[in-house]
Amino acid sequence: MTVQRILIVSGTHGNEINPVWAVKKFNREENSLNHGIEYEYIIGNPVAYEKGYRYIDLDLNRSFKEIKNHDQDNNSVYEINRANFLVDQFGIHGSKPCQIAIDLHTTTANMGTSIVLYGRRYKDFCLAALLQNKFGLPIYLHEKDKAQTGFLVESWPCGLVIEIGAVAQNFYDLKIIDRFSLIISSLREEIDKLKNNLIELPKELVVHVHQGSIDYPRDEKGDIDGLIHPERINQDWKMIKKGDPLFLDSQGIIHKYERDQMIWPVFIGEVAYKEKKIAMSYTKKEVICSKKQWIQEFESF
Amino acid sequence: MTVQRILIVSGTHGNEINPVWAVKKFNREENSLNHGIEYEYIIGNPVAYEKGYRYIDLDLNRSFKEIKNHDQDNNSVYEINRANFLVDQFGIHGSKPCQIAIDLHTTTANMGTSIVLYGRRYKDFCLAALLQNKFGLPIYLHEKDKAQTGFLVESWPCGLVIEIGAVAQNFYDLKIIDRFSLIISSLREEIDKLKNNLIELPKELVVHVHQGSIDYPRDEKGDIDGLIHPERINQDWKMIKKGDPLFLDSQGIIHKYERDQMIWPVFIGEVAYKEKKIAMSYTKKEVICSKKQWIQEFESF
Repeated sequence: MTVQRILIVSGTHGNEINPVWAVKKFNREENSLNHGIEYEYIIGNPVAYEKGYRYIDLDLNRSFKEIKNHDQDNNSVYEINRANFLVDQFGIHGSKPCQIAIDLHTTTANMGTSIVLYGRRYKDFCLAALLQNKFGLPIYLHEKDKAQTGFLVESWPCGLVIEIGAVAQNFYDLKIIDRFSLIISSLREEIDKLKNNLIELPKELVVHVHQGSIDYPRDEKGDIDGLIHPERINQDWKMIKKGDPLFLDSQGIIHKYERDQMIWPVFIGEVAYKEKKIAMSYTKKEVICSKKQWIQEFESF
Repeated sequence: MTVQRILIVSGTHGNEINPVWAVKKFNREENSLNHGIEYEYIIGNPVAYEKGYRYIDLDLNRSFKEIKNHDQDNNSVYEINRANFLVDQFGIHGSKPCQIAIDLHTTTANMGTSIVLYGRRYKDFCLAALLQNKFGLPIYLHEKDKAQTGFLVESWPCGLVIEIGAVAQNFYDLKIIDRFSLIISSLREEIDKLKNNLIELPKELVVHVHQGSIDYPRDEKGDIDGLIHPERINQDWKMIKKGDPLFLDSQGIIHKYERDQMIWPVFIGEVAYKEKKIAMSYTKKEVICSKKQWIQEFESF
């Protein structure tokens, strides 16, 4: 394995402040080198973080498009410039090239500690399998959604999101901070073992595969007219079936799940997704058998 | 009692969305008249509410200054214009004069359902005593703080804030909504009884009197370098004494309460107060004996 440098990003959304605090203790000179691997700790969106906003002009974690926008039109969009800067600096061909990017996020949904993957990349599967094996973490595999693209970790050959909740935006919560600290330490340990060929992969990876998202009920003016139903709120990762309640509207009417297919919802009621017209996302469970290639791919960096 | 019209304001802070939802069911024509009293339900800061922001230019609930700013300098400040509009429209000398204003707020601090009073006005004491008697609600009496002025309810001859938490900004929580619904119904009932002289005041009012606020520990750059200590978080209204922990900084050092005087902190860790450099506010408990004048003052509107 030839991983030399790993990028740890916190504050990609400026109002997700607990991971920023958690990395403080790792972001000291004596910690930057670990068994020959150099760690770069960086705040993704420092201007938004300073203001306590999710972003300034655009969601930074949707601004990493495949074709870099260096044209004049986008020069004034802070997040596109910032995305380009991060890739120029820390991308695989950047001035301080990082082979892996870990992006630390919080959610107001009750997701617990979870992993988000974008597409089916073997290197990502390898890292995710190690963390799932160690902690039993659920994995949300995001793929095939044209409405949601340009995620940070997609611009690196290997990378995953750690998503921890429920915690409010801009609210410090020591329990959440401790969970991030544990995950960062563990990642460092696992990657060190990987480098020294001390890893055996678990036999399988259980993932929740993205199937799409649904919006809130809305009134004739387009305003939200439905709350997450009390039986559904905080029940992320838990299966629902036809007839289960989803929303309660202002008339007291219950809106139910009407499809025949069983489904596992995530990001239920995530505050930041209201502007994206997402009340929750649907997933299907899938078991993926692990392959030796997953580890072998690490040697191909 | 000559109360004719009462103003109920929600969304004075645009990211406190649960009271906005709660008043929806009251804000229908058939509900606007109640035993001869007309209710006006209004969103305090509709533009901020639309965007999910606390405010646009300035905190609206600090923009109700005694001398109205109609001069050119402030014409561009949205919240000052809005404050002037609300007073011109619904103030005691407005086009639809309201004698009482009730301002509905949420907090990210664990305050429960509470009342905030500004200064020692007899009419406010009367309403607060009725609610405290009915539900045992704690009362935060805010006074003598030159750094925090211009609150909405101060522009009406009688008015109080209902403050409910803990709930995150922009997050719908049915339990919080239900608490607002109960308070609004109860206020309508109590005011109706007052109007019909069916009220006997409790003997006393217990208040927590504002003593000042403290900031977070900060590093040399001025950035926050201390979290609310785990023993202090969510412990609003609970007495602390010398030596009790307040903050935990990034070095793991505990910052303690060092004064001899016992104190009752409130708004512990309120997210919106970071920009005001307030980590919590200190209060002292005081018992105020009720007076017949409190009710008599209602007849003097």
